[in-house]
Amino acid sequence: MAPAYTIGVDFGTNSVRAVVVRCADGQMIGTRVFNYPSGDQGVLLDPRDPHLARQNPADYLEGLRASIAGALADAAREPGFVPGLVIGIGVDTTGSTPMPVDAQNRPLALDADWRGVLAAQAWLWKDHTGAEEAAAITRTAAEHAPEYLAPIGGTYSSEWFWSKIWHCLKVAPEVFDAACSWVELADYIPAVLSGVSRPADVQRGVCAAGHKAMYSDTWGGLPSKAFLARLDPKLADLRGRLYDRAHAADRPAGRLCAEWAAALGLREGIAIAMGEFDAHYGAVGAGARTGTLVKIIGTSTCDCAVVPVSGAIQNVPGICGIVNGSILPGYYGIEAGQSAVGDLLKWWVERVCEGDEALHEALTGRASRLKPGESGLVALDWNNGNRTILVDPRLTGLLVGQTLHTTRAEVYRALIEATAFGARAIIERMIAYGVPVERVVCCGGIAEKNPLFMQIYADVLGRPMIIAGSPQTPALGAAASAAVAAGAGEGGHATFAEAQAAMVRDGDTQYLPDPAAGKVYDELYAIYRELHDAFGGVPGPAAELGTVMKRLLAIRERVNAG
Amino acid sequence: MAPAYTIGVDFGTNSVRAVVVRCADGQMIGTRVFNYPSGDQGVLLDPRDPHLARQNPADYLEGLRASIAGALADAAREPGFVPGLVIGIGVDTTGSTPMPVDAQNRPLALDADWRGVLAAQAWLWKDHTGAEEAAAITRTAAEHAPEYLAPIGGTYSSEWFWSKIWHCLKVAPEVFDAACSWVELADYIPAVLSGVSRPADVQRGVCAAGHKAMYSDTWGGLPSKAFLARLDPKLADLRGRLYDRAHAADRPAGRLCAEWAAALGLREGIAIAMGEFDAHYGAVGAGARTGTLVKIIGTSTCDCAVVPVSGAIQNVPGICGIVNGSILPGYYGIEAGQSAVGDLLKWWVERVCEGDEALHEALTGRASRLKPGESGLVALDWNNGNRTILVDPRLTGLLVGQTLHTTRAEVYRALIEATAFGARAIIERMIAYGVPVERVVCCGGIAEKNPLFMQIYADVLGRPMIIAGSPQTPALGAAASAAVAAGAGEGGHATFAEAQAAMVRDGDTQYLPDPAAGKVYDELYAIYRELHDAFGGVPGPAAELGTVMKRLLAIRERVNAG
Repeated sequence: MAPAYTIGVDFGTNSVRAVVVRCADGQMIGTRVFNYPSGDQGVLLDPRDPHLARQNPADYLEGLRASIAGALADAAREPGFVPGLVIGIGVDTTGSTPMPVDAQNRPLALDADWRGVLAAQAWLWKDHTGAEEAAAITRTAAEHAPEYLAPIGGTYSSEWFWSKIWHCLKVAPEVFDAACSWVELADYIPAVLSGVSRPADVQRGVCAAGHKAMYSDTWGGLPSKAFLARLDPKLADLRGRLYDRAHAADRPAGRLCAEWAAALGLREGIAIAMGEFDAHYGAVGAGARTGTLVKIIGTSTCDCAVVPVSGAIQNVPGICGIVNGSILPGYYGIEAGQSAVGDLLKWWVERVCEGDEALHEALTGRASRLKPGESGLVALDWNNGNRTILVDPRLTGLLVGQTLHTTRAEVYRALIEATAFGARAIIERMIAYGVPVERVVCCGGIAEKNPLFMQIYADVLGRPMIIAGSPQTPALGAAASAAVAAGAGEGGHATFAEAQAAMVRDGDTQYLPDPAAGKVYDELYAIYRELHDAFGGVPGPAAELGTVMKRLLAIRERVNAG
Repeated sequence: MAPAYTIGVDFGTNSVRAVVVRCADGQMIGTRVFNYPSGDQGVLLDPRDPHLARQNPADYLEGLRASIAGALADAAREPGFVPGLVIGIGVDTTGSTPMPVDAQNRPLALDADWRGVLAAQAWLWKDHTGAEEAAAITRTAAEHAPEYLAPIGGTYSSEWFWSKIWHCLKVAPEVFDAACSWVELADYIPAVLSGVSRPADVQRGVCAAGHKAMYSDTWGGLPSKAFLARLDPKLADLRGRLYDRAHAADRPAGRLCAEWAAALGLREGIAIAMGEFDAHYGAVGAGARTGTLVKIIGTSTCDCAVVPVSGAIQNVPGICGIVNGSILPGYYGIEAGQSAVGDLLKWWVERVCEGDEALHEALTGRASRLKPGESGLVALDWNNGNRTILVDPRLTGLLVGQTLHTTRAEVYRALIEATAFGARAIIERMIAYGVPVERVVCCGGIAEKNPLFMQIYADVLGRPMIIAGSPQTPALGAAASAAVAAGAGEGGHATFAEAQAAMVRDGDTQYLPDPAAGKVYDELYAIYRELHDAFGGVPGPAAELGTVMKRLLAIRERVNAG
């Protein structure tokens, strides 16, 4: 029997990548990247508002077609491969990236009337225009529905679904009124491939719903009409045009429709997997299972773990997202993260040292020659706030221990170490609340390209850092999900566990902890934790200092306002 | 009657400057700088030991002759001036800068046998090779003679007299054995001019003795023989070859000898004032009097105040030096300071930003455009330890409040502000313990050249910052002391108060505090004090953090050692 293949399509911030993967062994036989043509590297900006980041939905559709066609053409070099052997398509995307759609589930932005209107485009994950709305949602929920805040760590983000839609309602009511519904990109693409022609038929993934839209089966789905009416009656009206149920990836989102089958040269009716966010399918593609923590390390970090729904998982205080089925069906998906990792080094190199990529390399070289503890420095990794444990986006950075001899390379290393200490704090918190962590698998740009970073992580965490076998874990995870959606009978897999066993493997690179370095880092981590608790406002003897960062921000805001 | 003149000679780290000053009005009519020819800009270094800093005594003698001759030649342009109108010479120097001398009071280094031997040279103030000895002196005094530590803030420094001599005894016993005595540079130069030919005849100034050699009339002069014997019996022996009494500047150190009168073309027998350290005669030349604080602001800062001996001055905890007569006769000289001011900015620009003087200017420009509080940053100014209040050279720096947008110019301004907060802490401490501060007069390179710095100081301190009238306050103060040593009958002055009234004036530049900026700085200063007390180990709720910097240093030292 000829081998079966699936396609994984990974919608990133600047481009979309498609891969063709063999179900039997995860071998990637074709790939193609398509760069979004619109805006600044695919992002529509507003020169008057640095918080705005939108995308042109036409780029998604063109990218979907072109990347798959390209990957299939690339795969054609594989002896015996023909597109008819493809049994399913899986999709992952950025998120929360919602877009307004009409009654035919067509993005408003594709309509000539709305083509140039920024509010009618897709609202990219990193759009922060809804900051005031996010704060109001947090306040309202804290007062009237605190249960909504518990699984998201107590604070609703400006990056998320409702903040964006409410902001649209405020600044562009004509767009809000014209929209029949709003659809997350992760749900939209599978619906397109499945030929869905009305929003009510879009299969909604619990990944986007649970992590970004305050969806939970516990309270009957999305936030109640009464709650939304407190924000704005029109949001309460919208609720009825959104969805009642969201689903894990244990069922297909649909079947490939005739139109797209023809466009792509694939068989009509093959399985279309449920969409998930890139981090979550990335975790699948890196081997997420009970006891394995997947760290996606890039500009920021996303830490993904799963525990069986059957187990007795407690709420984990300070961890933003615990959603049933959001990564793997049958498991709670647990998502933690650090708000600035690569970004922290980028800040140091570009803003402070005013250097470029070459300086990154030079400082990495100089920092590599330092021993743990040699600089006498410890930093807090909070220049962009703290996402996990303290869950406070308004915390700021701290550096202590500098002398007149302290160099930029020493600070560079201290910042890397700070992110490693932050990573350790997250893992310790998970373990303390019953999330087992036996293996740590890392993926993302930093994991693949920065041995210094990974060695420091191994030494600070006192564990091997395993690098994922695929450099394209999100696309691979989406392809694995497609293999499950297709099923074993089609040459796919019966379960995610089987799909991962067959298709996912660890990389050859592992960074092993050095016990001597670990001993020094244990001491430095103790200091990090003291600073963390004191400046993070954890109740304790030094709690007075817990208000320092906030007071500085309040002064800054007042000064800038007046 | 023809006007009288005095000469002030200021021995700095890299050069010596002589000035010719009219006693009636302080007008400077001649000046000349002589750069020390030996070593690296006058400093003898050891490539194997960065803590070593020595000077060639031959440079002092050649510099003494050349600078005075040059200043007299320059003064010859003044109508009516002739060298015969000079009625006295005053000298100020760096310190503690002791040197071993033979039985003729000749520096050993001038002897052919010792010419190339580093231990036989003058031990420059910033030589830190005696760090271990300093620690041992502190420990021994804490146990057996705590009274010795009270007036110096609890810690004996590696920069001071006994640390250096003891270190010499340990590493170069042959030099120690060959030395008949040790003489501070501030005492040596007046002795040379006076033709002193044996160490016992050197007039020792209480300035060097009291601030650096644990001299006090309270316990009968230098530390006791018994105490010194605990360090090393040979130090106890040396005590008998040093001095029993040290003097304030209310009496001349001597009279100009025939040999130097001939060499300089001056009248034999004119008054030679007691020598003092540059900061102290600098305070005199800036107008030090009861209620006036003189701040000498450069790489580090020296804050000098005086209070009448007749008054009821308490010990001021955390202020290193309170010495009867060390600045002005009849007054306690009170010396405080900050270990890094200009050096803190130099660190940021040169070590971190890897820039130069042009970058200092650029950052000053950018920092000038920031409002107080706008950056959201607060720093501690401890990169080189804390000299006053906490008196702990092992404290280190701290920066808090940085985000991913924080710029190098914002940090630059935060560091300036940190030094201003440190200055405020010192003034508040003085006032709290009965040292009146009604006027602040600033001198030194930063006071003269950096309006941004001085405006921030005015705003943080909530007081006008008066810039001293002379850019050469140490030499002017030495010249004023010479006028007092010569006396009113010779055309000089009867008292320091009269000399200062005639010869010293404020500059035209004053920086006035902006109340709006002051309000913001009051809030930032409150945060600075919380950090200061917590990380400085002041007993209080956050005292745990008071060990953070020390633990980091201990780790660093252990790592570097092994």
